[in-house]
Amino acid sequence: MKENSEKLAFAKIECADNLSAVEDAVYVLGGKWKLRIIVALVSGYYRFNEIQRAVQGISPRVLSNELKMLELNGLVKRTVDSEKFPVLVEYLPTEYAETLKELVSMLGKWGRNHKKRITLSV
Amino acid sequence: MKENSEKLAFAKIECADNLSAVEDAVYVLGGKWKLRIIVALVSGYYRFNEIQRAVQGISPRVLSNELKMLELNGLVKRTVDSEKFPVLVEYLPTEYAETLKELVSMLGKWGRNHKKRITLSV
Repeated sequence: MKENSEKLAFAKIECADNLSAVEDAVYVLGGKWKLRIIVALVSGYYRFNEIQRAVQGISPRVLSNELKMLELNGLVKRTVDSEKFPVLVEYLPTEYAETLKELVSMLGKWGRNHKKRITLSV
Repeated sequence: MKENSEKLAFAKIECADNLSAVEDAVYVLGGKWKLRIIVALVSGYYRFNEIQRAVQGISPRVLSNELKMLELNGLVKRTVDSEKFPVLVEYLPTEYAETLKELVSMLGKWGRNHKKRITLSV
């Protein structure tokens, strides 16, 4: 009995721990756009307009905010090449953003599979 | 030159494909709560009040909506045991929800790591 309640207490702590870790990740990556922006960056779209075209439906204002948030979290680096005219501004995925590659590809796989599943069941 | 532009076209199609798959996944799992609810369910919280306590900050109304959405997507099964008094309603993760386990644990790992990183850099 005691062992059982200890096990339960442990499961609860573990769950709370997982919950807060997932919460942290969702805080950084969550929302409608961030992961999609990261896919676009990793796919080689670096300029604002390119990214906006790739991530369909996002407004310039929201994209600008999202890029700032991603920069604050160390996932994007904004570079300015003022030698060029017009000045070339690029948003490059950082090395740290590479840590998301596997996660994003897994999410993509799941999404593809889920779409098939939902389409078949309707 | 031609080969290059072909490559580019392929990369674009691949990117669009990934983007829409990630979009599908984010549509089902995105938002502030869904993944956290799934963590709670997988951790063994099945009753409405239990889940609400585990997912801190969620209102009953939002939780109820989120559970309905998850049920529509085949990730949760609502069971009613009317033999009991009061009637026992439970929300059980489906077998299909198991396909998210790896994804969620990866997300949790990333979140834990990211928090460390951010805490150290401040």
